[in-house]
Amino acid sequence: VLRIKPGDTVETQTFSRAGDYYTPEKAGPWPGEVGPFFIEGAVPGDTLVVRILKLAPNRDVAISSVTPNGISGVAGDSRTRMLNDPLPTRRFVWRLDRERMVGILDLPNSNSKRIEAPLRPMLGRVAVAPAGEEAWGGLWPGDFGGNLDASDVTQGATIHLPVFHPGALFYFGDFHALQGDGEIVGSGLESTADVTFQFELVKGKRIRWPRIENDEYIMVAGSVRPLIDALRIAYVELIEWLVADYGFDKMEAYQVASQVGVVRVANVVDPNYTVIAKFPKRLLPRP
Amino acid sequence: VLRIKPGDTVETQTFSRAGDYYTPEKAGPWPGEVGPFFIEGAVPGDTLVVRILKLAPNRDVAISSVTPNGISGVAGDSRTRMLNDPLPTRRFVWRLDRERMVGILDLPNSNSKRIEAPLRPMLGRVAVAPAGEEAWGGLWPGDFGGNLDASDVTQGATIHLPVFHPGALFYFGDFHALQGDGEIVGSGLESTADVTFQFELVKGKRIRWPRIENDEYIMVAGSVRPLIDALRIAYVELIEWLVADYGFDKMEAYQVASQVGVVRVANVVDPNYTVIAKFPKRLLPRP
Amino acid sequence: VLRIKPGDTVETQTFSRAGDYYTPEKAGPWPGEVGPFFIEGAVPGDTLVVRILKLAPNRDVAISSVTPNGISGVAGDSRTRMLNDPLPTRRFVWRLDRERMVGILDLPNSNSKRIEAPLRPMLGRVAVAPAGEEAWGGLWPGDFGGNLDASDVTQGATIHLPVFHPGALFYFGDFHALQGDGEIVGSGLESTADVTFQFELVKGKRIRWPRIENDEYIMVAGSVRPLIDALRIAYVELIEWLVADYGFDKMEAYQVASQVGVVRVANVVDPNYTVIAKFPKRLLPRP
Amino acid sequence: VLRIKPGDTVETQTFSRAGDYYTPEKAGPWPGEVGPFFIEGAVPGDTLVVRILKLAPNRDVAISSVTPNGISGVAGDSRTRMLNDPLPTRRFVWRLDRERMVGILDLPNSNSKRIEAPLRPMLGRVAVAPAGEEAWGGLWPGDFGGNLDASDVTQGATIHLPVFHPGALFYFGDFHALQGDGEIVGSGLESTADVTFQFELVKGKRIRWPRIENDEYIMVAGSVRPLIDALRIAYVELIEWLVADYGFDKMEAYQVASQVGVVRVANVVDPNYTVIAKFPKRLLPRP
Repeated sequence: VLRIKPGDTVETQTFSRAGDYYTPEKAGPWPGEVGPFFIEGAVPGDTLVVRILKLAPNRDVAISSVTPNGISGVAGDSRTRMLNDPLPTRRFVWRLDRERMVGILDLPNSNSKRIEAPLRPMLGRVAVAPAGEEAWGGLWPGDFGGNLDASDVTQGATIHLPVFHPGALFYFGDFHALQGDGEIVGSGLESTADVTFQFELVKGKRIRWPRIENDEYIMVAGSVRPLIDALRIAYVELIEWLVADYGFDKMEAYQVASQVGVVRVANVVDPNYTVIAKFPKRLLPRP
Repeated sequence: VLRIKPGDTVETQTFSRAGDYYTPEKAGPWPGEVGPFFIEGAVPGDTLVVRILKLAPNRDVAISSVTPNGISGVAGDSRTRMLNDPLPTRRFVWRLDRERMVGILDLPNSNSKRIEAPLRPMLGRVAVAPAGEEAWGGLWPGDFGGNLDASDVTQGATIHLPVFHPGALFYFGDFHALQGDGEIVGSGLESTADVTFQFELVKGKRIRWPRIENDEYIMVAGSVRPLIDALRIAYVELIEWLVADYGFDKMEAYQVASQVGVVRVANVVDPNYTVIAKFPKRLLPRP
Repeated sequence: VLRIKPGDTVETQTFSRAGDYYTPEKAGPWPGEVGPFFIEGAVPGDTLVVRILKLAPNRDVAISSVTPNGISGVAGDSRTRMLNDPLPTRRFVWRLDRERMVGILDLPNSNSKRIEAPLRPMLGRVAVAPAGEEAWGGLWPGDFGGNLDASDVTQGATIHLPVFHPGALFYFGDFHALQGDGEIVGSGLESTADVTFQFELVKGKRIRWPRIENDEYIMVAGSVRPLIDALRIAYVELIEWLVADYGFDKMEAYQVASQVGVVRVANVVDPNYTVIAKFPKRLLPRP
Repeated sequence: VLRIKPGDTVETQTFSRAGDYYTPEKAGPWPGEVGPFFIEGAVPGDTLVVRILKLAPNRDVAISSVTPNGISGVAGDSRTRMLNDPLPTRRFVWRLDRERMVGILDLPNSNSKRIEAPLRPMLGRVAVAPAGEEAWGGLWPGDFGGNLDASDVTQGATIHLPVFHPGALFYFGDFHALQGDGEIVGSGLESTADVTFQFELVKGKRIRWPRIENDEYIMVAGSVRPLIDALRIAYVELIEWLVADYGFDKMEAYQVASQVGVVRVANVVDPNYTVIAKFPKRLLPRP
């Protein structure tokens, strides 16, 4: 949909698959994605660097639904098939107070009739076109990024993605105004947002899995089932990153990462689960 | 080893299995445990409440080892058997600067020859005697607590444990001056500490899994393999806690916990893995 | 590549991606697939029925390789990342004695210098085009069939596949002259074969996962990670089949399946694992 | 309960925890165990060899129950916690026709009002006292044997168990007149049986996991969660057995086991799952 040069800044929006997707009256669970963006000069073996300069909700409402055939981290679903009866259908409409940056949900069946939770805007999906000729459903995360559903993908973060195809073919979407670790209900506060990206290209640098940086951490996002293997990918890749770029001995990196590493369980509902392993920047050697 | 009345405060220490356990010269991986403490009046069906008023390292050294037959979250071990050759043996001796509360490790084989990491003292093990007549090796966590290896078990935290036997028979140990999420190397900065506990008893309140509270969160510790099932126990038990004690409707608790829940992967190396699911206290209804 | 009418019989062959794929001198691990076959009249919601009337090896050699970056069920690989060193590369060339129907492998480094194993010819892959617009790498099994690597897919078996696209778009390939349960080394005795299929169509019958029948069993193939979830899909789908087509009460089907069910672990190396759950035909009620 | 010399034959019975345990009127799910048998001369590091010379049901009834809080391989339970409602309670009473060796179950809610299934008598539990001072609940399988729930433990089979304590302290129980692979409902056709064992001792031979032999196969039983790790233990231990006792090169054993190995999923309901990996005896080198 757009050709971009390294260094370019792009102001855009996430949007809904249908224009009225996120009205309280009629809403589906997942918004559409935006893309692909063709990054000029990107070729397989490069790394695409995407800075999220801005990520701000632009609607007053967000939706999160539970459906009997839907996905869940704590109930039977199509991948974890159970003989138990499915959960009932429920659809939750959150009001977004963008002034105070809180989400408000009425809880008619609970003693506390309402809850207000601080928003933490994030992009569920940042991706490049996957390797080979595979076409993945939008729900998949993987080594190409995709539906990571990681709350670390937010304003101020920088995302590194491996380039598998000429132009990288970046896309993004699935804005969540808020989402808990694991996203156990299968969706966050699904809404739309204004986004500003800046793109860079690291020529000839090949990474195997998405990397994320913010002021505090360097991070790797591993995506696969089962959950322990997503954690293994994230930690092993993080250790190998410490070895390759920061001059650590492998066993010493393993020791140190084990003592200071931080783990986020991003999602346990997508076709692949996603785990983020983090290493504090202040403990990295100075260049 | 001690009889305690509810309300009592106890000043004690973690210690090493052998007196010289944690010297740099000769050290094993796990310190001994202290206990059992007999809590007067505790009977099956009660809940034991343990406040950690103080937890402070009392040595200048801590050990973390890697052994070929040892346990690991990111290498083959006795439970995840692999045909690959095992990792080499390595033993790491951290110096503890208790003034500055940092751990210092020499890294002779890395470019950065030394690392300094802020300490985060924690108790690896807090337990009551398990249900029935089972006797668990000290490495097991479970519904009785045990070897949770959760960094949330620290000064200022309150631990709730189900009582399965008269007197509860509380024990504790396995002090870590620092440990990362997952404890992938199989040990933290193993050392010893001064500890002050205060004990309370909630009569007639039956909980199924350990609960932890601090200023910010209520938490549940679920321990089982595989990792996803530890997460399921923690989240389902947290949701049922919101229903039972805070008047939430089940489906509404499920929705809200999914949006604001925080997950810590405590360990992926013990015979059961441990996951902590957390709910922010400020979002709980006022009593 | 071919348009077929229900009832048609097709004589064909599996083949190698390159013509000389399976020579001892130069061979890759996986043969190409044949297809797609357009089944006239097939529309989404139908079930495609494929009888394997004949499956016979047509070469004198088969290959199975181990590569350091390759897949394995009992060693670290790209999905189960481990810090351990990878296994060494090895390539095994089996001679196929089609007269005696045995595979012969020299074992130069073992005390017994040679092994002869009876062949059990099978098709690793039988598939229809997957749902939606997803394009799966050839290594994936799923609800569309695909790379099941199940030794039950053999001469005399009947395969039922859900139709997701007009014409069903059947394909097949990946002939194994022999393969053990789990396919832990990542490949079977990869070779080529003569195949005769007969196709039928069940109009308006929607199945969710591939079904297999032979003289002895009705079977369901569930494919997902982790392994327990593949088993759950296979068994739950088998129980629901007993309910829908054979008039069982759900709880009674669950009880009986638990007492007489047979499980095959087809593969633990593909991107999804595959488990087959079987119910003996002689215990089914007579129509 | 008994002191036994190597070479001794013992005729005994499994029995119910209470004398009337397995009457149709009042029955619990698990029978008691018999033991321990003190094997004279057995010391840690030896291997205990137990031949099952006879295993024959001695009652006319067997029970299998489903309880809401019970265990299940295909429904939420205490280890795989789910938000779904539990399954209803059901209790199934099978009649055992010992003349025809079939189990007969009425199915009042199914179209076929009755089912007759051939019996396959097996011992759910064969065990030695576990290593260390751990005391396991009777539901656990492990490296000491225990509640394997493997239908290969039957008349004609020979079981090898590692000796961890002087006298080995053998026990057995949990007779199943029939049980399907995985035991997904949490119990087999629980009943009682006459048993004849013969005991041997292999001095100074240390094995890590239980081994089973019959006329056709050598087998290893691996028990742990998750299921893939039980399979890994079974296969890796089988490969190492081929190397140590049969002179195979490791990579060649890996190749051959992958092509001819047979896997049984014994149980997916016990605290540890059990997988049996089998290698055909006719492919072993002659001594």
